[in-house]
Amino acid sequence: MNDSEPISNAVDEGEVGFVDFHDFVSRAPFHFEFGGVIPELTLRYETYGQLNKEKNNAILICHALTGDHHCAGVHDINERKRGWWNFMVGPGKPIDTTRYFVICSNVLGGCQGSTGPNTINPETGKRYDLDFPKLTVRDMVRAQVLLVDSLGINKLHAVIGGSMGGMQTLQWAKDYSERVDRYIALACGARHSAQTIAFNETGRQAIMRDPKWNQGAYDPEDGPFGGLSVARMMAHITYLSDVGLENKFGRKRKEVDKSKEDFDVEFEVESYLHYQAQSFITRFDANSYLYLTKALDRFDLFEGEEPEKTIDKIKVPGLVVGFDSDWLYPPQGNREVVEHLLRGGKEASYVELSIDYGHDSFLVQSPDLYQLIQTYLNF
Amino acid sequence: MNDSEPISNAVDEGEVGFVDFHDFVSRAPFHFEFGGVIPELTLRYETYGQLNKEKNNAILICHALTGDHHCAGVHDINERKRGWWNFMVGPGKPIDTTRYFVICSNVLGGCQGSTGPNTINPETGKRYDLDFPKLTVRDMVRAQVLLVDSLGINKLHAVIGGSMGGMQTLQWAKDYSERVDRYIALACGARHSAQTIAFNETGRQAIMRDPKWNQGAYDPEDGPFGGLSVARMMAHITYLSDVGLENKFGRKRKEVDKSKEDFDVEFEVESYLHYQAQSFITRFDANSYLYLTKALDRFDLFEGEEPEKTIDKIKVPGLVVGFDSDWLYPPQGNREVVEHLLRGGKEASYVELSIDYGHDSFLVQSPDLYQLIQTYLNF
Repeated sequence: MNDSEPISNAVDEGEVGFVDFHDFVSRAPFHFEFGGVIPELTLRYETYGQLNKEKNNAILICHALTGDHHCAGVHDINERKRGWWNFMVGPGKPIDTTRYFVICSNVLGGCQGSTGPNTINPETGKRYDLDFPKLTVRDMVRAQVLLVDSLGINKLHAVIGGSMGGMQTLQWAKDYSERVDRYIALACGARHSAQTIAFNETGRQAIMRDPKWNQGAYDPEDGPFGGLSVARMMAHITYLSDVGLENKFGRKRKEVDKSKEDFDVEFEVESYLHYQAQSFITRFDANSYLYLTKALDRFDLFEGEEPEKTIDKIKVPGLVVGFDSDWLYPPQGNREVVEHLLRGGKEASYVELSIDYGHDSFLVQSPDLYQLIQTYLNF
Repeated sequence: MNDSEPISNAVDEGEVGFVDFHDFVSRAPFHFEFGGVIPELTLRYETYGQLNKEKNNAILICHALTGDHHCAGVHDINERKRGWWNFMVGPGKPIDTTRYFVICSNVLGGCQGSTGPNTINPETGKRYDLDFPKLTVRDMVRAQVLLVDSLGINKLHAVIGGSMGGMQTLQWAKDYSERVDRYIALACGARHSAQTIAFNETGRQAIMRDPKWNQGAYDPEDGPFGGLSVARMMAHITYLSDVGLENKFGRKRKEVDKSKEDFDVEFEVESYLHYQAQSFITRFDANSYLYLTKALDRFDLFEGEEPEKTIDKIKVPGLVVGFDSDWLYPPQGNREVVEHLLRGGKEASYVELSIDYGHDSFLVQSPDLYQLIQTYLNF
């Protein structure tokens, strides 16, 4: 979400260095929760570290809405940025690649190599676009289970993720408790609030009202980039915090004093948003954005039932981390999950960190988060 | 902003009933703060109550971004809704039309009858569109001064307004202290934060990236309605509060369970936003939205200088009201204005009301706000 480089590491750990992705292909038909089916699926993924003989040292990292499988290292010497969680994953880091075999896959429905709306449907020879089935977070997790199976891993040491990755993490804990030793969900909650749904729907409308969206059947080279830019600009504001933006930009100007109105960039924060949007449209598929945000809006850990029923299914200990400046997935939504777990007699912990980066706090290195993850994974 | 009908009046006051608007026309060239000029201007306005012989009982109400001059009563028997501040303005109400002569004008740059981008430029016979000069809140106030002059009013009993209306109010207090007895500014602040600018810029981009915007020269019957809808949906979220939306909608569904994804409305909050957008595009001009939001972003009560310089110019007592659930113009921004005034030895009061309606709280009837305005206007 936040494309900015994380602040420099407090400790001088090792780096995973050069990495390559792999494609896991399942040739069996995949049935979606809402009834749709695709003839096969691919999940693009990366791994770091070595799987031990007992195959019990694997950690699965689940990425956020606009993240991908590339969470650590670099693909080649020209790559400007390291993976999105590079400060967290590597030798001696909290997700320690000298101890753990770390897996991160692009989600089902994504657009970075895994099967999603922009994938060619082998049955038609055309992109799925809106023929891609209705998607849920449970579908994403079920696809990950196939990948984990293919690696011969029966039980994961941990599942961890933030935001959409946190929801996948909670879904794992609920649906596959017997295959997870522990879980860490960051900056998420049991379900979206009305406000979060409202923001997502506004983003979707920005895309769908762009004439170039063309009912999802757009030219990938000339897609609904205007709408996708607007969706990203808005979403990006919700990933940050009022205080964070104020500290970074305030009312710093790029002003030209003239009587003619041209609606040009006048404040630096505008220029920053434009940059974020431009960078986003070069890497993200508009239909994928629609499908993934819908899956998020639909996610409800409790599935509309009494929370106790869900809690009963979660058999393993977990840690939930909220951030006080996160107003998209506010602390109370994170805390609520753990309150239900504790009331249900489960082993669960809640930590609330005070970091100014809003929802993106889990993507920004901080000593508190760093130590917390390190300790919890190793206990 | 909030189109919903205010909750019913706690007290059974009278109504202003049927009202008519008037057009004030100034035939002299109007010079804008940034240097632009238009050959003449019109302000559409309404008045309620009677101007007394001494002409010292006038109250000027300044409207918010998407408000207008019609703040009380109805235009005809078929009008479904009363004016936007009807609960506040009328016989026996806080802005008591049996005591006060109440004026409310559509702002310069607006689109409800006052001169703005969608007005025909008498020099060219075409709409101004983007030839309309760069606009500021000071320009809006200077146009209102011409209207007040034309009514023979030397000194206003009060100026009052919320949000953009609050900024106009503060500008009046600063630039025309000698012409105001007191002022009440609600839900505003001295200037926009980076976050508020970011939201406004996203809304502008939604409009300007709509191909039908056509560099501002759109067909009014076939304008950038898609972009304007998206801008409104996003803005509308920022006018409300997380808690308010959750209480009203939560995760109430309009669901159709099917495997095909059609991105239809699935939650009631989505349907509500669509309705708000649809209603908005029938009444608001896209270029006007661009100009007014730019004026708001530029507004800085302190004009980048030491606040003391501004404070020195404000010679009259004032009341500033913040709302604890307002995250677009948060309480601290409102409070800050009064803190500076008090430090500068000025008569000023700050009240923070606890109302769940977010930024729109000033548009929703509450006993606290009702009494506060009533008392402050009459002291």
